[in-house]
Amino acid sequence: MSRTGRLFLGIDPGTAVTGFGVVRVDDRRRAELVECGVVRTSPRAALAVRLREIHEAVAALVAEFSPAAVAVEDVFQGKNVRSALTLGHARGVILLAAALGDVDVAEYTAAEIKSAVAGRGAASKEQVAYMVQQHLRLESPPRPSDAADGVAAALCHGLRVRLPAAV
Amino acid sequence: MSRTGRLFLGIDPGTAVTGFGVVRVDDRRRAELVECGVVRTSPRAALAVRLREIHEAVAALVAEFSPAAVAVEDVFQGKNVRSALTLGHARGVILLAAALGDVDVAEYTAAEIKSAVAGRGAASKEQVAYMVQQHLRLESPPRPSDAADGVAAALCHGLRVRLPAAV
Repeated sequence: MSRTGRLFLGIDPGTAVTGFGVVRVDDRRRAELVECGVVRTSPRAALAVRLREIHEAVAALVAEFSPAAVAVEDVFQGKNVRSALTLGHARGVILLAAALGDVDVAEYTAAEIKSAVAGRGAASKEQVAYMVQQHLRLESPPRPSDAADGVAAALCHGLRVRLPAAV
Repeated sequence: MSRTGRLFLGIDPGTAVTGFGVVRVDDRRRAELVECGVVRTSPRAALAVRLREIHEAVAALVAEFSPAAVAVEDVFQGKNVRSALTLGHARGVILLAAALGDVDVAEYTAAEIKSAVAGRGAASKEQVAYMVQQHLRLESPPRPSDAADGVAAALCHGLRVRLPAAV
């Protein structure tokens, strides 16, 4: 694959584990995996400290890759109010990292990401990971699964956005 | 009042309006109001942009006043999951501003703040504003009410923390 194309950073937010993936999508919509991984924070650290770790890790990814956009999973589905509030903290510092880097943010629900990557919104985690592997021609799905979810978010947005006529 | 004592920054978080107050508390637990106000964000701006405005405003307050601690209201009470998630975003970037400034964070529920300032956790907004006015010997309660809530959070923490023997 050529080195042309645009980079997209995908994030699966969480205060304990935040998954991320960077994919490059060229003008023929071919995608390749550039990087993926997770940011783990210590459960013993204060929430503010954990948020700082998440924010700085995402800010570093934005600075390193200068993505065309950051796609953030709107992971929240039917959890309780307290866990929604906590998750919001993580999403907040992630969106902030994008804003401070002057990078556009795209938000997708889990169903939208599954639909874009695996063809249906109700696809299982394993099916999504398998389709990510196929799209990106990897030998195995990205690990751990939070990293695969970050890659899926990046892929969802990268395949969906309309590229300029001449890239 | 003397200029000795410690400064406390109190925050009442919200994505639309974030209230803040800075109070100075001396070693005899006398408190005075140093500053208060609100950060308003445009409802037409993207969430990430609004979060950036909130974060930068709080970071500027932390830099200007070097508070001994930031007291953040845990405003969430029985709202729905979606509003909890949104509110979490604002709290996240506020806690981050404290963490990046190496300032301790104290979190209080609305009931705790009301109890500390007005004597009972079920006090009305007007009663809290009135007691804030009395504590700080102001001619009128801080306006708008979100600013008063920020001041109340600062006062709650300032009156509660044990000061070092020699300040």
